[in-house]
Amino acid sequence: MKHNFGAGPCILPQEVFAQAAEAVLNFNGTGLSILEISHRSKEFEAVITEAEQLVRELLKVPAGHSVLFLQGGASQQFAQVPMNLLPEGGKAAYLDSGVWASKAIKEAKKMGNIEVVASSKDANYTYIPKEYTIPSDAAYFHYTTNNTIYGTELFETPVSPVPLVSDMSSDIFSRVIDVADFGLIYAGAQKNLGPAGLTLVIVEDDLLGKTGRNLPAIFDFKEHAAAHSLYHTPPVFSIYVAMLNLRWLKAKGGIAAIEQENIVKARTLYEEIERNSLFKTTAVPADRSRMNVNFVPAKPEVEAAFLDLAKERGLVGLKGHRSVGGFRASLYNALPITSVNALVDAMQEFEESFKQ
Amino acid sequence: MKHNFGAGPCILPQEVFAQAAEAVLNFNGTGLSILEISHRSKEFEAVITEAEQLVRELLKVPAGHSVLFLQGGASQQFAQVPMNLLPEGGKAAYLDSGVWASKAIKEAKKMGNIEVVASSKDANYTYIPKEYTIPSDAAYFHYTTNNTIYGTELFETPVSPVPLVSDMSSDIFSRVIDVADFGLIYAGAQKNLGPAGLTLVIVEDDLLGKTGRNLPAIFDFKEHAAAHSLYHTPPVFSIYVAMLNLRWLKAKGGIAAIEQENIVKARTLYEEIERNSLFKTTAVPADRSRMNVNFVPAKPEVEAAFLDLAKERGLVGLKGHRSVGGFRASLYNALPITSVNALVDAMQEFEESFKQ
Repeated sequence: MKHNFGAGPCILPQEVFAQAAEAVLNFNGTGLSILEISHRSKEFEAVITEAEQLVRELLKVPAGHSVLFLQGGASQQFAQVPMNLLPEGGKAAYLDSGVWASKAIKEAKKMGNIEVVASSKDANYTYIPKEYTIPSDAAYFHYTTNNTIYGTELFETPVSPVPLVSDMSSDIFSRVIDVADFGLIYAGAQKNLGPAGLTLVIVEDDLLGKTGRNLPAIFDFKEHAAAHSLYHTPPVFSIYVAMLNLRWLKAKGGIAAIEQENIVKARTLYEEIERNSLFKTTAVPADRSRMNVNFVPAKPEVEAAFLDLAKERGLVGLKGHRSVGGFRASLYNALPITSVNALVDAMQEFEESFKQ
Repeated sequence: MKHNFGAGPCILPQEVFAQAAEAVLNFNGTGLSILEISHRSKEFEAVITEAEQLVRELLKVPAGHSVLFLQGGASQQFAQVPMNLLPEGGKAAYLDSGVWASKAIKEAKKMGNIEVVASSKDANYTYIPKEYTIPSDAAYFHYTTNNTIYGTELFETPVSPVPLVSDMSSDIFSRVIDVADFGLIYAGAQKNLGPAGLTLVIVEDDLLGKTGRNLPAIFDFKEHAAAHSLYHTPPVFSIYVAMLNLRWLKAKGGIAAIEQENIVKARTLYEEIERNSLFKTTAVPADRSRMNVNFVPAKPEVEAAFLDLAKERGLVGLKGHRSVGGFRASLYNALPITSVNALVDAMQEFEESFKQ
């Protein structure tokens, strides 16, 4: 048994793995693998319908917002969002809170006039910029809720004169949000939703079809909305596993319940980092992420030794991103508190070993 | 045990299903699921490297052609191909041999001047147009090798004054081709390669970067080639299953060997259709597909009865596409000859039942 702290693709519930493996052999007693059934079959229609309903129920998606299952990850949305929402010759506003935000900005600039309202790049993105004004003539304001690499998270939804567009790849389904606040939400699935190869988009229908662009159909959210995500062959298996994972989340009590667990998991680990003389955090306390806890050794020379001990204890995926260094413990929904406790135990044991 | 004649997503080898299910529980003895490992891990690097090498080896991909694992299916390539190969203000030539070809044409027209050299639409695409001239001032000539819906296949690679671009979604890996003949080949995975959610692109590097377009990075083949398909998080599981399937194909003796099996399977079924008084084919004999055998009942009123009998015998996925009607038996690589024999037995039994 491993404790998987990887940043993504990441841990999903063990029972979801068991159900997914069974479906690869025999899906719902059909005698067929989930990998060989038609996306037009009634069996798969039931899967994608349930997946959409679970997204709607768990996130309380309002009527008038479409829920889309697409491909290409958040990286494709960096282009697809302005293709769909930024009028020819128009302007959009972006917040630069990390590498992914800056990639979104770079791609959007290929399609229009992009105003970056604030950036924390000079401080290696250790905090979320807070003092800025969103221009009221922008088509939308884009920001990233959770910065996986730097371990920062923006919990309070900004007040904006224009529609909010948010990349929630790494914290969607981890805490309560009000979808009605957003014109568009997108998320690569491979954190709290399902396997890589699936992208969730939730978009207010009234925002679509107003750019004047002659979009390829495959990039047009209206096409996917009209076809209920069956405009073309969808990633059948990834949608099935996402549906299983959403069922698990519902059975756990939904997002409000998992949020409480996530708060406890993050607090447990941050408290140990603060207490432990060998570690310190990198992000400013006010903006610390619940999903990705970044920390570095107080003395750089002990880094390798701690990773060795972690490996011995079955704690995997803890190496920090190269742009921050040190360690990163990702505490997504499916990571049990027992894994956090195992990490804390290892940190305490590591500290003790230096006292002898 | 079902005999799966579905047109796609479709049957894969039973041993691939078994190996994939095992990896969902415990990938290569890591104690982790294939669904929770990082796409940057050495374990997955080994998978994607082997997958690429198997594509290169099985198809004898020449140096100077990149092999890319992307997302979005052939439908995304309908847009992405002209984005990458059609210069601003330039022209491309297309052959219209079916609905998918015509969708490729529709999307390409949004990006430039498209000349349709020939079409068999007037005959409901029952044949492959053969009399046409490819303009030498086109950036490329695009055609579809196999028309899944109509059961036609273009076996002889056209002689062309400009680079050939081919949608091989439904017959790649089923017969020997010379990749050097093609500037670009693309294929949705969900026939002879792997699960839905993966797209294979093989492109001659020298053709790229010449359109003058300022492409979003995610749609730029050069970005994916430079990053060896790890420009962003790839569809990890689909690539893993594709790798397993390519291993299976190699162990079977490769493409030349499977082609012989495919010839026998198709001939067996076409001969029964011709012999049997209750069925007839729809495509013209010279252009009949080996992958998708379309046939209709001689008397329309027996259609439902035959589907009932097929269902009783565990023969699934035989209902024809709505635009052709009748039956369609897809005979992809993984469909064993025993399944074809089971279908032939049912057809003979059905004919006998009308003689009593």
